[in-house]
Amino acid sequence: MTRDKSKTLTVIEYVLARLHDIGIRDVFGVPGDFSFPVDDAICKDPRFTHIGCCNELNTAYAADGYARINGLAALSTTYGVGELSAINGIAGSYAEYLPIFHLVGMPPMSMQETKRIVHHTLGNGEFDLFYQMVDPVVCAKAIITPTNCMTETERIIAAALYHRRPVYLVFPADYANLPIAGFAKPVSPPLSDPAILDATVAAIQEKIMAAQHACVLPGIIVSRCGFQQEAINFVESSGLPFATMFMDKGVLDESHPNYMGMYDGKLMNDTIRDYVETADCIISIGALLTDISTGAFTARLDPSKHIRINHHSVQIGHARYKHVEMQDVLTLLSERCSKSHNVDWPKEHMQTSLKGNPDDRISADYLYPRWQKMLKPGDILIAETGTVSMGLGFAEMPSGSNYQNQGLWCSIGWATPAAFGAAVAAPDRRVILITGEGAHQISAQEVSQFCRYGLKPIIFILNNAGYLIERLLCNQPDISYND
Amino acid sequence: MTRDKSKTLTVIEYVLARLHDIGIRDVFGVPGDFSFPVDDAICKDPRFTHIGCCNELNTAYAADGYARINGLAALSTTYGVGELSAINGIAGSYAEYLPIFHLVGMPPMSMQETKRIVHHTLGNGEFDLFYQMVDPVVCAKAIITPTNCMTETERIIAAALYHRRPVYLVFPADYANLPIAGFAKPVSPPLSDPAILDATVAAIQEKIMAAQHACVLPGIIVSRCGFQQEAINFVESSGLPFATMFMDKGVLDESHPNYMGMYDGKLMNDTIRDYVETADCIISIGALLTDISTGAFTARLDPSKHIRINHHSVQIGHARYKHVEMQDVLTLLSERCSKSHNVDWPKEHMQTSLKGNPDDRISADYLYPRWQKMLKPGDILIAETGTVSMGLGFAEMPSGSNYQNQGLWCSIGWATPAAFGAAVAAPDRRVILITGEGAHQISAQEVSQFCRYGLKPIIFILNNAGYLIERLLCNQPDISYND
Repeated sequence: MTRDKSKTLTVIEYVLARLHDIGIRDVFGVPGDFSFPVDDAICKDPRFTHIGCCNELNTAYAADGYARINGLAALSTTYGVGELSAINGIAGSYAEYLPIFHLVGMPPMSMQETKRIVHHTLGNGEFDLFYQMVDPVVCAKAIITPTNCMTETERIIAAALYHRRPVYLVFPADYANLPIAGFAKPVSPPLSDPAILDATVAAIQEKIMAAQHACVLPGIIVSRCGFQQEAINFVESSGLPFATMFMDKGVLDESHPNYMGMYDGKLMNDTIRDYVETADCIISIGALLTDISTGAFTARLDPSKHIRINHHSVQIGHARYKHVEMQDVLTLLSERCSKSHNVDWPKEHMQTSLKGNPDDRISADYLYPRWQKMLKPGDILIAETGTVSMGLGFAEMPSGSNYQNQGLWCSIGWATPAAFGAAVAAPDRRVILITGEGAHQISAQEVSQFCRYGLKPIIFILNNAGYLIERLLCNQPDISYND
Repeated sequence: MTRDKSKTLTVIEYVLARLHDIGIRDVFGVPGDFSFPVDDAICKDPRFTHIGCCNELNTAYAADGYARINGLAALSTTYGVGELSAINGIAGSYAEYLPIFHLVGMPPMSMQETKRIVHHTLGNGEFDLFYQMVDPVVCAKAIITPTNCMTETERIIAAALYHRRPVYLVFPADYANLPIAGFAKPVSPPLSDPAILDATVAAIQEKIMAAQHACVLPGIIVSRCGFQQEAINFVESSGLPFATMFMDKGVLDESHPNYMGMYDGKLMNDTIRDYVETADCIISIGALLTDISTGAFTARLDPSKHIRINHHSVQIGHARYKHVEMQDVLTLLSERCSKSHNVDWPKEHMQTSLKGNPDDRISADYLYPRWQKMLKPGDILIAETGTVSMGLGFAEMPSGSNYQNQGLWCSIGWATPAAFGAAVAAPDRRVILITGEGAHQISAQEVSQFCRYGLKPIIFILNNAGYLIERLLCNQPDISYND
């Protein structure tokens, strides 16, 4: 950001300028009277577009989808009714490591001081209850005043980038347009400790060299942080094969010769499972061992053979190395690794020969290979949680394409607005949304936005007459609540 | 509840039996795997209907609408993604004094103990974060186990009935179907202290008798608790006129001869304002002095002349009387009052003579009198927050009809699902939903449910091309975020 000393920015202008610096160009939102100063400033700033959404939950999902493509996102909602409607979406972004800047307009401090009963409050004269409620789903938050604006904004930006989690900035309506006071510089991210980094990489190398066979499990943190190139460099310099777990699908290019396929405990491919679970050395890079990623905890990864390269630490067997950053570890590993392994993996692709004739009744066997066949390099595929994400897990993604699913939070309804957010982030790429009718009805109105903003996604809504994934999980598949 | 000693109920069966005892027949819900035991039990119990909604926020709004007609309501959602999506609706019910039983299915305790990363969690091994988040918007909550089931259920029911606020019952999936242990009896509500009640009523009477002119302001607590008859008895025995503030519209029959009209500070009728504000004695009954009810705090009610009959206390001038219940105060007042005042109020009705011809362009002048004209005794009118609730505030409600608006929480999108909930509660009454296109798009999918359940509301969606109420409030009416 260029700090023009001749003009003091207002509180909201400063925050927007800094969000622009770090790469945000659009703010998703639903307006409300307490957030007028925030929304006015967004509309007034020619560098930003205020993207109106149909409701606040959809706004949060759209921001989530945007952040998956753009790296970061922002949304603006009003106090109480707005922010609480968005909170489930924010929680999903927290669970799935997406840095979302949630800007919330708050009643003026002058009004708060009177303790009167104001609309959008609980009627008890309390104004900071919702600010307290968000604690578990944000990694940093502040009520922004002219005095704290610079320090708090810098602290919050640093936290969002370091933790890759949502943050929450609250703007009392009478403070937002005041000029900022004080001064603060951007906070530098923590760096790796050189000695520990050296020792960590040496220890990993030693394990790789000693292994009869080894493999890599790249995880979502790699794509969230944009470390795909560093991870590929490591895979290529070491010659190691890689597989992905469910939540990590598509993190690295699936057309890469070292890609084995999906590893999902006992639920998917036995050959890959045998390979991974009998390896002497398994190197996961920012992968989470969730229930869905591990095939309902049927994955058997021996902790003593498991090296976990985390975002800010490394775990080698039972030893923990702190003060080492993923990017630095991968870069140094790639430099030091010689090609110790050669992959000769009989890739088992998804059955892409199409079954049945075009006029046949649509079945899973008929449908999923056809979906796979239509995918092109560079596509963004948004798959809703449920049977479609399960089915599409088998699809091999073309080079440069992007597979997105909410694999941990699993909030149905996410996919439709997330696809809208992704399309706003990448208007020149093809966005394909595949959802189910049960999930789609949760957030269907957001489809109208594609049209409003001239975006042209391809949308499939799989109508299987109910919550199919739940029918498969519950005791009585035909029970009425799944209709 | 009949306790059949020959059969021990399970945890969820006990809770449902008690909800049935207190008058709940329908449970609104969206299922999820952790809530299967709860939803299975609802579907299995022939005394209940599980009413599937399109999403969880709409579920909470539907329960809110049902409680406005039925007195109480229940909803069932799953863990994390479900409960957080509903939380804005629950907050609205909290602000507006509606006892809603929120039943939440939680991961099994056996799973929680492993601290593993399970779907619908934040991935940090914590399982009680969402339980903590709801604190500000519920008046009681518990994680229900076989051992605590009876005591906690009874405590929670008593709290919901006493405070008229939402409560929150969480069911770990592996506990819900276990037989209950222990025993507890229903908790009796607190009674008025006879001596204090006597003194309080005497003090109120004295004020009324001494007043040159006095008036009554009945408020929403009267209708929430079903004390309309007690309030009317007091009005009639005292002969006092009554006006209602915005949030309290329709609390008492607007065709009653003692009804003056609406009192909204400086924003509405000056004659009524003069009458109220120059009274020597103003008796409000469970009315809240919110910004919208007081005409943006332009109401001038002298605290020394203001008697506030609250739900569980009375304030006479600056003196507070505790341990007196509203129902007891009203009943004793009615018994003791003699008709000291005679109302001769020149009622100023809304202009019901229709302006313009049927084919004219639709304007506010044209539209609102026509809406008023179509209202019939017994109708339930659900008015969305915004210009429609403002406009309909002037309509005179026919006898036995019911006017509902979310006057404090003001969460747009509430009206459509709330109308559905009201229609489920009163399938034989005519439900009229009047909303705007901006609010309707937030929760529009719930319209499908009227059809699904064979309900036939009358629905008006006022399309004024944007958030009109916000255009009126913000600096630049034509700014894009209000489109």
